[in-house]
Amino acid sequence: MSKLYFRHGAMNSGKSTALLQVAHNYEERDQRVLLVKPAVDTKGDRSVVSRLGVTRDVDFLVTPEMNLREAFADFATESAALGPIACLLIDEAQFLTTAQVDQALEIAVLDRVPVLAYGIRTDFLTHGFPGSIRLLEIAHSLEELKTICRCGKKAMYNARLFDGKFVFHGEQVAIDGVHVTYESLCPNCYLREKAAAEEA
Amino acid sequence: MSKLYFRHGAMNSGKSTALLQVAHNYEERDQRVLLVKPAVDTKGDRSVVSRLGVTRDVDFLVTPEMNLREAFADFATESAALGPIACLLIDEAQFLTTAQVDQALEIAVLDRVPVLAYGIRTDFLTHGFPGSIRLLEIAHSLEELKTICRCGKKAMYNARLFDGKFVFHGEQVAIDGVHVTYESLCPNCYLREKAAAEEA
Amino acid sequence: MSKLYFRHGAMNSGKSTALLQVAHNYEERDQRVLLVKPAVDTKGDRSVVSRLGVTRDVDFLVTPEMNLREAFADFATESAALGPIACLLIDEAQFLTTAQVDQALEIAVLDRVPVLAYGIRTDFLTHGFPGSIRLLEIAHSLEELKTICRCGKKAMYNARLFDGKFVFHGEQVAIDGVHVTYESLCPNCYLREKAAAEEA
Amino acid sequence: MSKLYFRHGAMNSGKSTALLQVAHNYEERDQRVLLVKPAVDTKGDRSVVSRLGVTRDVDFLVTPEMNLREAFADFATESAALGPIACLLIDEAQFLTTAQVDQALEIAVLDRVPVLAYGIRTDFLTHGFPGSIRLLEIAHSLEELKTICRCGKKAMYNARLFDGKFVFHGEQVAIDGVHVTYESLCPNCYLREKAAAEEA
Repeated sequence: MSKLYFRHGAMNSGKSTALLQVAHNYEERDQRVLLVKPAVDTKGDRSVVSRLGVTRDVDFLVTPEMNLREAFADFATESAALGPIACLLIDEAQFLTTAQVDQALEIAVLDRVPVLAYGIRTDFLTHGFPGSIRLLEIAHSLEELKTICRCGKKAMYNARLFDGKFVFHGEQVAIDGVHVTYESLCPNCYLREKAAAEEA
Repeated sequence: MSKLYFRHGAMNSGKSTALLQVAHNYEERDQRVLLVKPAVDTKGDRSVVSRLGVTRDVDFLVTPEMNLREAFADFATESAALGPIACLLIDEAQFLTTAQVDQALEIAVLDRVPVLAYGIRTDFLTHGFPGSIRLLEIAHSLEELKTICRCGKKAMYNARLFDGKFVFHGEQVAIDGVHVTYESLCPNCYLREKAAAEEA
Repeated sequence: MSKLYFRHGAMNSGKSTALLQVAHNYEERDQRVLLVKPAVDTKGDRSVVSRLGVTRDVDFLVTPEMNLREAFADFATESAALGPIACLLIDEAQFLTTAQVDQALEIAVLDRVPVLAYGIRTDFLTHGFPGSIRLLEIAHSLEELKTICRCGKKAMYNARLFDGKFVFHGEQVAIDGVHVTYESLCPNCYLREKAAAEEA
Repeated sequence: MSKLYFRHGAMNSGKSTALLQVAHNYEERDQRVLLVKPAVDTKGDRSVVSRLGVTRDVDFLVTPEMNLREAFADFATESAALGPIACLLIDEAQFLTTAQVDQALEIAVLDRVPVLAYGIRTDFLTHGFPGSIRLLEIAHSLEELKTICRCGKKAMYNARLFDGKFVFHGEQVAIDGVHVTYESLCPNCYLREKAAAEEA
């Protein structure tokens, strides 16, 4: 039985590395994977970039208006000469639309192809993205990739910094770059930094 | 380190039994637990009812406007003669408000009392309740209690029946009773029943 | 795909309750379960006894020389009028022989009946039983049922007391009774009690 | 609270990649890790080699007669100028002796340094190694790294091939090389290959 998996973890927990390892595992067994990510994630352009130094291009970018199940079927048909697709891997899955997550479920349940979606649970204010909320609601399996907070506890939340200072207001989506960065924090450190910012 | 746990499972997966077992485990070690549930859940009135036949009254009902952290602290103070509270157990936690889930996190993180919240992930249309979405977003640990579908696969969704027929429209909250019942289904069976209902 | 599950937990973590809940879940969906336990466990005679107060007789006791797969097949054949068996539930599975665990795997893999084995990982000296070691080696899924230590941490080891004092020598199997009792401890408390006993 | 983790998975499931990712996560947060592996594993000499192409030298090799806790303490003392060690990472942990696993538990519980041990559960005959059995018995947390079998199911067992043919007798330890290779199989495929080999 094929399933929809949501493998979630704070930023910098190694999600892309884990995804690329799964792709490698399949291909080592001569099984073909399809690798996609939402176009919203402009970091790395068409690439999935692991902080360990491994990168790989996606097979296609998922734009917001795209029907993921149809796009998947079309791609499979066009490339049928390369063999059937054994697994669909989705990076930055929190940026899928809710409809696309429903389509991912249908790929798993109706088309019988396992779907492994990697992403973060929440934004810098600990609120879910549309895609991650839908995955948390309907995925067969919720599996956590762990990383650590500066204090040694498990990091879970993705705090945003602007020019090195924690900020607790702003747009939900802000890809990290020169001014905006993120730090994964445990709930204790997150609540403390938030209280400190509110006092200041 | 105390944590906020969300132990989720489809209806009739044994959540109340598991909660009552945890209460028993603590008390057997002479540790005190506090047991609450949202007032929205009118089934069993003030009781947590396990389908195995075990029941127990809650310590208090959580009304929507209540500040859970303050109510917890007040209860602990008033009953301090009975000893400190080692664990907060919440049944039907999907009916908490989002603010109350944030307060539950604070009880775990700031007051250092573990909080075990039991509930379902989604309603009969596979959409989260406010409380369950917030728990899926911020809980330290997401743990699944499994049960089976009629077909033998793992049940995940809570399909609603009215007079024995699956229905896919209606209010989000409808406590089961004479006309309204629920059946836990796997995604395959759920999608099939939904397609059949849409055709009819 | 049917699997062999090992649901392990320290003594008094609620394994029998969980097992009886699973039996209930299946039967509520008109699916038949078979419930067995090793004859070595003389506690409760032919019953699975939950500390929550629920009890139920096993369908048969598994003696050490029994071929579990053949016994399962024979029982299924003799009682075929009652319908197929949807699930095999094994209590106190640490007392199975290694051969019986291999047979349990065959029931899951070759006969396609899920096998849920509940038991403890280790004896009072933190060494596995033959049955639990084999389950830890070959089960598809290792799932922990948690309980707490006197100190509030997760209990994992099963310390033995004789007339109320911790003992660290003796036979591997000693069913609890008047003189012999057990207390589930976390590794910290276990190591401390062991060091104290060695000093004394 | 520091814990001893056993992250197990079939061969080629990405254990070394996961270990190197954890090392990276710690160091990115300016926390220091210590990386070791048993000297028995001659593959890669002093390196941990990920099949994704990432490699890194261990800090020291663990020989069978070594007291791991003392060696850890000595290394920490000698290199104290570099800061405290936040985490001990062990690759190929199935090759530890049982005493060394007990020492790893003490490092976690008494010295309060988390220990993450990566390894396989069983040898090519599905029997545990001394180190992996001890980890399965006493680790705080058993976490599985999954990979797939040739058939698409989850691989769990490590079948050995000699010149490309499955073999079911031989020494427990045989590092893969020119003649000896391994293939991770699901229980179904393993039992089928074993039956076929026994018939031939």
